Amino acid sequence: MERISKIAKSICAIDGAMLERAQNRLDNLTKPLGSLGRLEELAKQICGISASENPLLKNKVIFTLAADHGVTEEGVSPYPQEVTAQMVYNFLSGGAGINILAGHVGARVVVADVGVSIDLKPDSRLVDRKINYGTKNMARGAAMTKDEALKSICAGIEIFENEYKKGIDIAGTGEMGIGNTTAASAITACFTKRPVEEITGRGAGLDDKGLNNKITVIKKSLSANNPDPLEAIDVLAKVGGFEIGGLAGIILAAAANKVPVVIDGFISGAAALIAYHIEPKVKDYMIASHCSVEGGHKIILEFLGLKPLLDLNLRLGEGTGAALGIGLADAALKILTQMATFKSANVSEKKNE
Amino acid sequence: MERISKIAKSICAIDGAMLERAQNRLDNLTKPLGSLGRLEELAKQICGISASENPLLKNKVIFTLAADHGVTEEGVSPYPQEVTAQMVYNFLSGGAGINILAGHVGARVVVADVGVSIDLKPDSRLVDRKINYGTKNMARGAAMTKDEALKSICAGIEIFENEYKKGIDIAGTGEMGIGNTTAASAITACFTKRPVEEITGRGAGLDDKGLNNKITVIKKSLSANNPDPLEAIDVLAKVGGFEIGGLAGIILAAAANKVPVVIDGFISGAAALIAYHIEPKVKDYMIASHCSVEGGHKIILEFLGLKPLLDLNLRLGEGTGAALGIGLADAALKILTQMATFKSANVSEKKNE
Repeated sequence: MERISKIAKSICAIDGAMLERAQNRLDNLTKPLGSLGRLEELAKQICGISASENPLLKNKVIFTLAADHGVTEEGVSPYPQEVTAQMVYNFLSGGAGINILAGHVGARVVVADVGVSIDLKPDSRLVDRKINYGTKNMARGAAMTKDEALKSICAGIEIFENEYKKGIDIAGTGEMGIGNTTAASAITACFTKRPVEEITGRGAGLDDKGLNNKITVIKKSLSANNPDPLEAIDVLAKVGGFEIGGLAGIILAAAANKVPVVIDGFISGAAALIAYHIEPKVKDYMIASHCSVEGGHKIILEFLGLKPLLDLNLRLGEGTGAALGIGLADAALKILTQMATFKSANVSEKKNE
Repeated sequence: MERISKIAKSICAIDGAMLERAQNRLDNLTKPLGSLGRLEELAKQICGISASENPLLKNKVIFTLAADHGVTEEGVSPYPQEVTAQMVYNFLSGGAGINILAGHVGARVVVADVGVSIDLKPDSRLVDRKINYGTKNMARGAAMTKDEALKSICAGIEIFENEYKKGIDIAGTGEMGIGNTTAASAITACFTKRPVEEITGRGAGLDDKGLNNKITVIKKSLSANNPDPLEAIDVLAKVGGFEIGGLAGIILAAAANKVPVVIDGFISGAAALIAYHIEPKVKDYMIASHCSVEGGHKIILEFLGLKPLLDLNLRLGEGTGAALGIGLADAALKILTQMATFKSANVSEKKNE
């Protein structure tokens, strides 16, 4: 807990003077005021976060954390649990969606096992920070112990900090874990107090019967555990997942190091809720990449007051939306730093009306 | 007219069998069915357009056409007309928004003068296809002659075809012309029959008084000219612009050559309306990059049944939204062609529910 408190305390407000300087610069570029909309806002936010007038996005890192969920026993996913491990191997060999989209935007992918249910084949590219062999079935009791919840957040912090030594200018969150939309839905219901029916979606592709069962399981998990929304660690322990705790740690560590963190979809959003309830200032460091098909994601974004950049009906996770968001952040900073000004290009400014 | 009819007649329906093959391939990739949403649709559309299972986006070209508008006499823009020419020089020296965003996605920008009001300094990088020194003031009569309207479309076709010799796998539309949201609004009102008040926006930044004046000028232009919505050339001649005609030509030529064409914002949308009314099959070759802040753009997209990929509050034009759309198209095709399949990656498929 001490480690987490220390990180949380080190998160400062973003740099207001730098926001102003960025705005001033944007307003002098050869384009009508504000005509590049969200790209301008994004460039400005990154200046504020990094406290730099010329932020460079050289090192782009997406953290894809994998873990299993005991609640899959309740039939909440159409895919078997073994897919989590299989997808980790797919990440390592470069064939998954996140590999392709990270490659597209020039980001590297850090793949970590924080709780896959089997021992994975040793691989130098895999970060091994396994907390346990999957969570327990939250429909029958807490998903993990309080100690494990703290450990999962600390694992995320350490994964970030180890990678930070190699350089990180922008981070993205991603995950893999069969059953994890069920945990994310329970977390969202607990913090936002919105009905489970509104929050819960079809995950990897449930039919109507499967969706109804999932809703029942989430309600059962919440009433069996009674997580306290004022205690983020309690929520994480009772109805969370190791990758969700890990991503909360990544988000907190990014903010503490003044690194913008691009939040992926619904499960990453649940991790953002945990991080926010540990330290609300972390919110200003978050960039919402997209709005997922999962209904609960929109509820999280509204709760946090984040506006997603994209709405492309994505629901894959892994960090795929975050990768596209990082691409837009890159574009936004190029606008800020590379465009000509009215003066440098000898272009006339707006007439006084 | 013969040239245009010939191009229009050569536009075929997109390849249905290829759409099916692309869908089949997408469904075998290591991700839940359809979980990459709009990216999957986009990849599929490009396979259908190019009639290829492995479309490569090596040559990406954005056509940025510049022209002036006589209607600026009526005070419809907060910027002086000279800015059109100044921005052409800015495009050529690489300092404008489109240069930065095209560079970001690896596209080259073809800058053409199809009707700037002054003689531009000769420059080997500038395509000179000037039809006239700006249009006439449409509030007092036709913006151009019928012959000029035809010439502007032909100019677009020729600009495309000349560039096509160097290779074009995907095209984007862009424009520059002080006053051209006024022309685009009039075109949109004529074809969609929606009220001018709903269609007209603040362009490069009009205040309330300026906006009201612009609405009055558009209404006056429509009643003075009475363009016939069943005759695309009549609409273009009476209330259009040279760059709008040129872009309609680009769009038709792209479709005739089975090249996907990414439509930028409101003015490009007005050009898409012209192209569509010449040959409706052209629509399937269009990719709507974004939804502009200009209200008329949403009306065009709905009229054509196009779903924009992005909604980033852009209103710059030049092809900036098209550039971002081309980046997404690139990402979509990488997903299609580079991701592992369930079989190749040994990942278990969905259980039968």
